[in-house]
Amino acid sequence: MSSMIALEVMDFLHVATPASWVSYAKENQSTLLIDHANCERKAASSALSMIYRYGARSEFALRLSKIVREEMRHFEQVHSLIRDLQIEYVHLSPSKYAQGLHRFSRKNPMTVDDLLIASIIEARSYERFELLQSVLEGTIASLYGKLKASEYRHFLAYLEIAEFLESKKLVFERVQEILHFESRLITGYDDQFRFHSGDPANGN
Amino acid sequence: MSSMIALEVMDFLHVATPASWVSYAKENQSTLLIDHANCERKAASSALSMIYRYGARSEFALRLSKIVREEMRHFEQVHSLIRDLQIEYVHLSPSKYAQGLHRFSRKNPMTVDDLLIASIIEARSYERFELLQSVLEGTIASLYGKLKASEYRHFLAYLEIAEFLESKKLVFERVQEILHFESRLITGYDDQFRFHSGDPANGN
Repeated sequence: MSSMIALEVMDFLHVATPASWVSYAKENQSTLLIDHANCERKAASSALSMIYRYGARSEFALRLSKIVREEMRHFEQVHSLIRDLQIEYVHLSPSKYAQGLHRFSRKNPMTVDDLLIASIIEARSYERFELLQSVLEGTIASLYGKLKASEYRHFLAYLEIAEFLESKKLVFERVQEILHFESRLITGYDDQFRFHSGDPANGN
Repeated sequence: MSSMIALEVMDFLHVATPASWVSYAKENQSTLLIDHANCERKAASSALSMIYRYGARSEFALRLSKIVREEMRHFEQVHSLIRDLQIEYVHLSPSKYAQGLHRFSRKNPMTVDDLLIASIIEARSYERFELLQSVLEGTIASLYGKLKASEYRHFLAYLEIAEFLESKKLVFERVQEILHFESRLITGYDDQFRFHSGDPANGN
């Protein structure tokens, strides 16, 4: 079996983001940006905790540490944009997305699940940045265009670490299970709009 | 009252590191480096959690985020040195130091305690880097010489944020209370050698 790592993000994900989410995002850029800043902080926190879990191998510790630094740099970029646009930094409850993926994993946990979930989140973020870059304008569109490349590298990095720790076959099968569940979170109705939320129109 | 921020680290700390700790560190550089790498990771994690707590103000979020990135960069430098010196990366239980400071704070917690404890840890790290730089040799001595400057900036940054959130008088009084307790951790006998451990000889 060839590695998944040669795959494009859209061949990796099972479903595309619904058009209704993209329209909603265009109309709710303040919420999008604040939640996005929170996501970058949480992505850093997640990579940091994985150093503790998988960092006994020096090369993994160093790769994960660089991911933490990149996520914090993104956090700063999004935070500065929020400040420049004079958007009030209100508290937002977290999206159900990452919580849902982790809850799914906990039913029948595997050692590499944290890595696979992180990889899937990066792939979904990449897909959404690409969509948003094409429909938004100005600084936010150009920022999202720039962030895409990092998400793609992180998506691959997490998969590569997982494929080092477990067989490619096992990683492939497990990632398909999580992606199958992920597609339900993305296409199912979601009453809360966030960077990784589901379909805001499906329930209407 | 003038700000504490003009103070030198050694005027800030109540006690100097015992000479016995320095001798012990010289003889146990592998343990020192592994625990130091863990400390950098934990310092990043602590700054990251403070963004959640104090980051509603954009300037604090950005300062704390830069601290996270610097701590991770240090983590990578120490980790690379451990790898280059072919030191085996064994699991080490955490020092009683940071745990002790947080336990002391929990008896009568104040909003700015996390910031003050972080500031004290940075000040103590600065003091130990300076001592170690003068007694160690080679790459480790030059690395510790370089890290000193960052610890000093972080020490001030945490104090500055605390002094923005609470009156200088209150911050001064509280920091003296925590420092008084800190001096007992540093000069008291400690059966476990770590980067921030107490006196390894006092109990003999």
